[in-house]
Amino acid sequence: MPREVRERQMLDAAVAAFARHGYQAASMDDIAEAAGVSKPLVYLYLKSKEDLFMACVRREIRALVAAVRQGTRERGAADQQLWNGLTAFFAHTAARPHGIAVLHRARTQGEPFVQEVTAMRVEITALVTGLLAQAARDTGCDGALAEREVSGLAHALVGAAESLAEWANARAAADGDAAPSAKETAATLMNFCWAGLENLTKGARWVPGPGR
Amino acid sequence: MPREVRERQMLDAAVAAFARHGYQAASMDDIAEAAGVSKPLVYLYLKSKEDLFMACVRREIRALVAAVRQGTRERGAADQQLWNGLTAFFAHTAARPHGIAVLHRARTQGEPFVQEVTAMRVEITALVTGLLAQAARDTGCDGALAEREVSGLAHALVGAAESLAEWANARAAADGDAAPSAKETAATLMNFCWAGLENLTKGARWVPGPGR
Repeated sequence: MPREVRERQMLDAAVAAFARHGYQAASMDDIAEAAGVSKPLVYLYLKSKEDLFMACVRREIRALVAAVRQGTRERGAADQQLWNGLTAFFAHTAARPHGIAVLHRARTQGEPFVQEVTAMRVEITALVTGLLAQAARDTGCDGALAEREVSGLAHALVGAAESLAEWANARAAADGDAAPSAKETAATLMNFCWAGLENLTKGARWVPGPGR
Repeated sequence: MPREVRERQMLDAAVAAFARHGYQAASMDDIAEAAGVSKPLVYLYLKSKEDLFMACVRREIRALVAAVRQGTRERGAADQQLWNGLTAFFAHTAARPHGIAVLHRARTQGEPFVQEVTAMRVEITALVTGLLAQAARDTGCDGALAEREVSGLAHALVGAAESLAEWANARAAADGDAAPSAKETAATLMNFCWAGLENLTKGARWVPGPGR
């Protein structure tokens, strides 16, 4: 069996183990057994538990970023592009719950893992900022929607999506039948934010009443 | 000087040090010096660096939760109550950037700190879920807005607020004059989500076109 196939099997087994048990508690014996290889082979290929975890984190980051890029590749009306991006994101997080759980674990494991996840978040937020800025230009409101506000909105959207994905996956883990589908989760976020964003691109704003 | 005053000085100094340097790099010598006490006194009162960090985390969690509870205490129209909660939250995060940074650090420091921050997030999300459910009942749309969707919306809102607070504080740290005020940040999130939520409470929904 070629090395890359063996390595993929090891990473698949490791992602599942780290997702289930966490970094500390996951056992290299169990990972080797689940991958159908000997433990020395895991160490030969991936060096150490830390390197194995890092390889998992990097693989899952690449997969998530690729899914979002793919989903937002096609230019279109702002709401359609946002919808495409959200459905691609939630389809990915629903299909790879272990991968998402590994990224969540990585965020709590100190350096160097936190840095990897932070860099991914910066990359996705920059992508979303670009899309929102484009939507603002398309609708001719790029003067009204300051660069600062576009950046803030992008951060809000990424935080909301991240939080919703965790919530949806927790529901699915607790009771798969009662969990929302990826499209339903995407629709929840779309309903949460779209009309707000749409009003912003039309120059309409929510204003607090006097004294509020 | 009474013990509680001394302890507060130690915690103030520790929060600033942990925020600036992180848990590992913060020095107990520097914390004692900044608090104007001897290092043995810090150990006598707070036991260990881990216990000191935990005391900081718990104090900042209590302060944040109290600010949000205070902000949302008064019943009112759904948009006003949301606005009150958001302005209270961002006023607090802007006024206590070190405290917020400590909570952010705690989330990356493994157990038992992650658990404390997770419990706080659960508490705040439950509070927000209650407010959204109340708003749904007030507008008579509690049948249309399923419990599941209200829960999803609350998670989206909490994730968005968390992400925006970090973004605003990073801006303030980089260049205080160019940073948005707490009210501006609250208005960004309000504009992001309110019209969306408002439409939901009116039964209006965003729907993808055919084939999307």
